[in-house]
Amino acid sequence: MIYDSQYNRLALLGNDVRDVTLFDTTLRDGEQAPGIALSRDDKVRIASALSDLGVDVIEVGFAASGDTERGIIKSIASMGLSSEVCSLARSTKRDIDAVIECDLGYVHTFLATSDIHLRYKLKMTREEVRARAVDAIEYARSHGLKVQFSCEDATRTDLDFLKEMHIAAQDAGASVINVPDTVGVIYPSAMTYLIGELAKVTKVPIAVHCHNDMGLAVANSFAAVAAGARQVHVCVNGLGERTGNAALEEMALGLYANFGIEAVDLSKIGSTSRLVSRITGYPIAYNKPIVGRNAFAHESGIHVHGVLNNAATYEAFRPELVGVDRHIVIGKHSGAHSVKDRLNELKIKFPDEKIPELLAKIKDLAVGGKEIDDAELMVIADHILWKREDGDHVKLEEFAVFTGKGVTATATVTVNIDGKKRTSSNTGNGPVDAAIKAIRCAVNEKITLEEYKLSAITGGSDSLCEVTVVIKGAFDESRLSVGKAYGLDIVATSVDATMEAINKDYNRGMRE
Amino acid sequence: MIYDSQYNRLALLGNDVRDVTLFDTTLRDGEQAPGIALSRDDKVRIASALSDLGVDVIEVGFAASGDTERGIIKSIASMGLSSEVCSLARSTKRDIDAVIECDLGYVHTFLATSDIHLRYKLKMTREEVRARAVDAIEYARSHGLKVQFSCEDATRTDLDFLKEMHIAAQDAGASVINVPDTVGVIYPSAMTYLIGELAKVTKVPIAVHCHNDMGLAVANSFAAVAAGARQVHVCVNGLGERTGNAALEEMALGLYANFGIEAVDLSKIGSTSRLVSRITGYPIAYNKPIVGRNAFAHESGIHVHGVLNNAATYEAFRPELVGVDRHIVIGKHSGAHSVKDRLNELKIKFPDEKIPELLAKIKDLAVGGKEIDDAELMVIADHILWKREDGDHVKLEEFAVFTGKGVTATATVTVNIDGKKRTSSNTGNGPVDAAIKAIRCAVNEKITLEEYKLSAITGGSDSLCEVTVVIKGAFDESRLSVGKAYGLDIVATSVDATMEAINKDYNRGMRE
Repeated sequence: MIYDSQYNRLALLGNDVRDVTLFDTTLRDGEQAPGIALSRDDKVRIASALSDLGVDVIEVGFAASGDTERGIIKSIASMGLSSEVCSLARSTKRDIDAVIECDLGYVHTFLATSDIHLRYKLKMTREEVRARAVDAIEYARSHGLKVQFSCEDATRTDLDFLKEMHIAAQDAGASVINVPDTVGVIYPSAMTYLIGELAKVTKVPIAVHCHNDMGLAVANSFAAVAAGARQVHVCVNGLGERTGNAALEEMALGLYANFGIEAVDLSKIGSTSRLVSRITGYPIAYNKPIVGRNAFAHESGIHVHGVLNNAATYEAFRPELVGVDRHIVIGKHSGAHSVKDRLNELKIKFPDEKIPELLAKIKDLAVGGKEIDDAELMVIADHILWKREDGDHVKLEEFAVFTGKGVTATATVTVNIDGKKRTSSNTGNGPVDAAIKAIRCAVNEKITLEEYKLSAITGGSDSLCEVTVVIKGAFDESRLSVGKAYGLDIVATSVDATMEAINKDYNRGMRE
Repeated sequence: MIYDSQYNRLALLGNDVRDVTLFDTTLRDGEQAPGIALSRDDKVRIASALSDLGVDVIEVGFAASGDTERGIIKSIASMGLSSEVCSLARSTKRDIDAVIECDLGYVHTFLATSDIHLRYKLKMTREEVRARAVDAIEYARSHGLKVQFSCEDATRTDLDFLKEMHIAAQDAGASVINVPDTVGVIYPSAMTYLIGELAKVTKVPIAVHCHNDMGLAVANSFAAVAAGARQVHVCVNGLGERTGNAALEEMALGLYANFGIEAVDLSKIGSTSRLVSRITGYPIAYNKPIVGRNAFAHESGIHVHGVLNNAATYEAFRPELVGVDRHIVIGKHSGAHSVKDRLNELKIKFPDEKIPELLAKIKDLAVGGKEIDDAELMVIADHILWKREDGDHVKLEEFAVFTGKGVTATATVTVNIDGKKRTSSNTGNGPVDAAIKAIRCAVNEKITLEEYKLSAITGGSDSLCEVTVVIKGAFDESRLSVGKAYGLDIVATSVDATMEAINKDYNRGMRE
């Protein structure tokens, strides 16, 4: 399934990495990303998806942050998820009490240990920090909670003090000790060194929590795992404070590809990623590994040809492994192979001898910058197949629309269909809606508007807009037809696009 | 400047990494990303920015792909950039001739060497591959070209054969030999092993070209550098086929932070990244390391407090190092500190006693999911400061607009300003433009429309749209005022948003 490099096997030979688990913090560190705020329903849905995916632990929030948050955490705690559920807590009784109030059995306590945090944030000495951490862990343990403890900013903490803290935390009863790279600055070989040193004094499992500020969160997590860490903190889609945490998708795939560890049900990665993107409103970058729209998209002629012959030539693994789709994108670099393939999938019969003309047209349009989507490909193919020698069959002779305050938007159109005039008027939610409805009435009552797309406009109220209209039933009842127009006037441009779609279908119909 | 981990220095001690250069392939591998197609002007602007940034080599395209491409390459070759300029070429005379035709002095030739590519793509034997590669290099050298040679899919190529190819390529005259991880599958320690092995037989500098399919492109590039590679192929914003190449930003920062190498002018990273994003139409992911909008954005109350005290508590380096801005984001987790800070920056005087009300309102809105941007924060603050007890000062009593085919869109409005009626009509590019112009005439000729934003609509022609209007000069000549409205009718919604913006400014003005 994974077409990996044989060098991975050589380099990792004898590396005894087993039983690595994932601690998902999408609902806590992920939610702290600017602009993300999740409702109860949002968190319940994501927690449920994470449990189905099979992560070991779900950090669902920060219980001390308020009644709303505690209510949400309590709901999730009572869902009977197969993953363990925990809450973050500062090292204070108040924070731990808040976790207990949520009926959770697992708390993740933390306290900063680096000199810079002690000095500028906590204003505490090392001795005070150690004592407070131990008190908090013991307090949580005395209430029957399982404890994971983190030395915040561990990767900038003095090694001797960090070891002291690890020893104190495990003696106080922590079950797991986490090593956060809070500021995202460590380098992989340094992480290997650090975890190796800590493993000398840490008897309980070590976890690692890496941030991606230098683009190394995933690599650092692997470096930690290779040095003995047993758990990795991850976020779906690499969410988290600033540039995020290690991405769940990349960790899960890498653990599988390099160490044969199936930490989660890989086939659910795609759907989980899409769910989290939809709910958080954070788009997935086109070039996001594993789940980005480009991960299995191929445009370049050379590559597409290879992929069509054997996917392994240009893909690390099959998209179905992680529940995502492959797609061949039509653009400037596309060759005959991929365009014909796409036309076949769209069920458009296109003669081979006209393919060069089609490719030339695609190259022309693509120079403008954009990838050619299916609707556009249909338009271009149509233009070539049905060149209008006699002009439009359906001409717009008259079009007027008025609207206002206390006035229902009303449009009147007169069309001329092969010499026969028909006039119709109609009302709508605004002038665009009224105009399109009036045209439909005048041309053919059976026309349905399948899709209306208006590009976003930023600038002035007379900026260029682009309208795409997909209709059905202008000439042929079941055939889709696409029209596209550009202009400064939203209403006139919508009318132009609708007329184009109608004429496409008519012209095709009259020739058949 | 860099607040790195002391463990990096320990782990990298004695590591003799010096003089690593960057080979930028944004204009070649980057352009192959689905949906990117660059015009001559686009490429010229990006090449010029890359040269200013200070990359060593710019791969500007693939000369054999057509006359247009050759024309573009020729233009760039004649610009006298301080970076070296090269073109990709397959290992054929035809492709190399195309490069010569562009007046370039540098060619990057390649040929696949892995068994899977030989079998499924090239359908050639190893002997044929070696002979063809050597022929191409010798041909290019005989025409005075400098040659970088790549064994495509090197990381899945048999080691003995790969070494043979390296020896053959350098004997044939290649100046640099590149090791592409074409499918993005190698693991960092495997890369270290592979480069170490290749370095045993390769006398010329080794370059490395990593893809990010498993999220390890940057880490693999560093692993190669640590093992002796002297040049790294990068793309701005991590563009490139599928999930992209090693990101220029992350390589440049990492080289600086960990090895003290300033491969480029770091302060120009932010502007170069924004330029490439704008030209390619590829948005930068919010959580993209170094240049994402979140890289220096802080929302969480805890973190913001720390950052305001000392940025080093939660930032790996200062944003000005790479020419980007820090910003504190207002959202669900924001506390009084950060909100007051933001209001101050926006020059809004806001009384301390009303801050709790403002925070409550922000939490309400943020639960819906979104981050509160400056325009929205201004609206919320306004609503609290200037609760309209007497209703709007400026009332819209009448509004009518008509447009059509052969008709100039015309709008008439009557406003009532504190009891005085004024009627005005105006024309425009479509009904939205006409309506907004008529309102401006009726209320105050000095009003200017600073921004008009209409959300994209997909669905029917009566889908919900959102309009934001920013105006200046309704009451106070220099003050910006924002209005926002939702509705089904684009024209009526634009009018509502404009009226809201006008009333905001009036209400504020009347109270002052």
